[in-house]
Amino acid sequence: MLVGIDLGGTTIKAGLVDQEGRILIQSSIDTKVSRDYRLIIEDMQKQIEKLLKDYGSSIDDIESIGIGAPGLMNYKRGYVIYCTNLFWNNVPLGVILQEHFKKPVYLENDATVAGLAESLFGSTRNVANSVFLTIGTGIGSGIIVNHKVYSGSHFAGSEIGHMIIGNNFYKCNCGNNGCLETFTSATAMIKYAIYRLEKDKIKSGILDKAEGKLENVNAKIIFDAAKEGDQLGTETVDRMVKYLSIGIINVCNILDPEIIAIGGGVSKAGDYFIKRLKAEVGKMFFTPNIKYGDIVLAQLGNEAGILGAAFLGSNV
Amino acid sequence: MLVGIDLGGTTIKAGLVDQEGRILIQSSIDTKVSRDYRLIIEDMQKQIEKLLKDYGSSIDDIESIGIGAPGLMNYKRGYVIYCTNLFWNNVPLGVILQEHFKKPVYLENDATVAGLAESLFGSTRNVANSVFLTIGTGIGSGIIVNHKVYSGSHFAGSEIGHMIIGNNFYKCNCGNNGCLETFTSATAMIKYAIYRLEKDKIKSGILDKAEGKLENVNAKIIFDAAKEGDQLGTETVDRMVKYLSIGIINVCNILDPEIIAIGGGVSKAGDYFIKRLKAEVGKMFFTPNIKYGDIVLAQLGNEAGILGAAFLGSNV
Repeated sequence: MLVGIDLGGTTIKAGLVDQEGRILIQSSIDTKVSRDYRLIIEDMQKQIEKLLKDYGSSIDDIESIGIGAPGLMNYKRGYVIYCTNLFWNNVPLGVILQEHFKKPVYLENDATVAGLAESLFGSTRNVANSVFLTIGTGIGSGIIVNHKVYSGSHFAGSEIGHMIIGNNFYKCNCGNNGCLETFTSATAMIKYAIYRLEKDKIKSGILDKAEGKLENVNAKIIFDAAKEGDQLGTETVDRMVKYLSIGIINVCNILDPEIIAIGGGVSKAGDYFIKRLKAEVGKMFFTPNIKYGDIVLAQLGNEAGILGAAFLGSNV
Repeated sequence: MLVGIDLGGTTIKAGLVDQEGRILIQSSIDTKVSRDYRLIIEDMQKQIEKLLKDYGSSIDDIESIGIGAPGLMNYKRGYVIYCTNLFWNNVPLGVILQEHFKKPVYLENDATVAGLAESLFGSTRNVANSVFLTIGTGIGSGIIVNHKVYSGSHFAGSEIGHMIIGNNFYKCNCGNNGCLETFTSATAMIKYAIYRLEKDKIKSGILDKAEGKLENVNAKIIFDAAKEGDQLGTETVDRMVKYLSIGIINVCNILDPEIIAIGGGVSKAGDYFIKRLKAEVGKMFFTPNIKYGDIVLAQLGNEAGILGAAFLGSNV
């Protein structure tokens, strides 16, 4: 069996997984992120031990432990280099767990982990080169090259959300202006709609759906308004699709994957969204003489975190 | 021995290369590009046969033939998919040569070929993951992943010059607006300087150096003017460096190579140029907690074409 952990700023999800990719048992605990990292890691240890006990097995049945977390990971040294949501800098997460359990521990970025799960059991199964994009509050990505996770020479690659593709009216958290995620994440859509509502005093069904409160505006409301033909809703979705298409055409022109899979909250807009995206990307291909990567919805949803993490060991 | 061919719109350079990467003999003939492709390929055959004769050897001494050309290549089927400079579409270049010489023939994009040469014998030697950018009339690129050429699932990858990074005042040949090469190639610099000279009637040392004729403006003149403190020269170089930095930071955030090597005509601006580029890229890194790819000048110059092509066979 394998242990897979999806470590987030709000919850820690952990599960025991068999070699066929079935989650046998899982649990979720609160991260309580404001604490010292040692306490958080201690809770993860207890969580694993409880899962093993509840399933009637022991640590001897475990081959390896894999963890996905939002940020940059030095998987070779077992360190979390940088993780904004957890306020972690150079935390020896892997080192501590490895010492405790005496089992190999693997770390990777959470979007990369989900991309690996999709490539083993989901939307990009049997495909050598693929890119997974998760679009939610930010944009995460996982790159698979030759069936293996690719994250570069200094653990800094696969940050497609921080590809600069234009000029925006606000700066990205990373300090640069124009990052893909500032145009195409749920946060970006909300910021743009509110900016237009406030600055240009536009009347829009978005505000009605949000019961008149700007703080209630979310991506679902914007998509719903767009589907009903609301002008600002349509404009906000069009803008998001336009920039996401630029991001995807850039990915095609650089990595030329066989499939680009899209997950995360925004992907819940489903076929309506994928159809528009494909049409827009199709206009920008370099030459009609060849096939380009297909754009599809991711298949595994939230389970991808535990699943992909569990299989990090067999992907080294 | 190996045969390496650098097929361009103006000349065809071919050479015999030994296993240590020494060019034993080489020649250059005019492409005479307006002819039927069959005649051009016939000339390539004669060129190879003459090289073999002049070197006192025969086709039996040859292991394989490799060709780099500007465009997209289907190396699996031996076709040039698309090559603007040669006006070629789906030309069976590899098929014809393979039939004629009864030896394996390998095709790749010319910038990819040069990137391979740099990774075997030049600036990115011994490095697993690297990116080569050649900046001249356009921008070509070669991606090396795990010591091997990476060009994607449909032969369409490694076109970093067509990464969209902003809005420009003119469209790219590929049909899109905002491609990296429309901001940072020699052509882009010339277009921008002329645009400002014409539109804004700016007085500039650039025009003096060009003897008052816009058609004489070139990248060297612009760099020379900038070095002397000319305002438009400086502005044009700054703009080029700014957008090239965006291109490079995007490459770092996606591929995170160990080294980014820069070749082509514009790289002749040398250390002056690389120093400014490094300073600008350095400002945009995601986190100070890790090392990022180093930016260096390519080392092999024009020989990279023949050399890299010759070694395509051993890179499959």
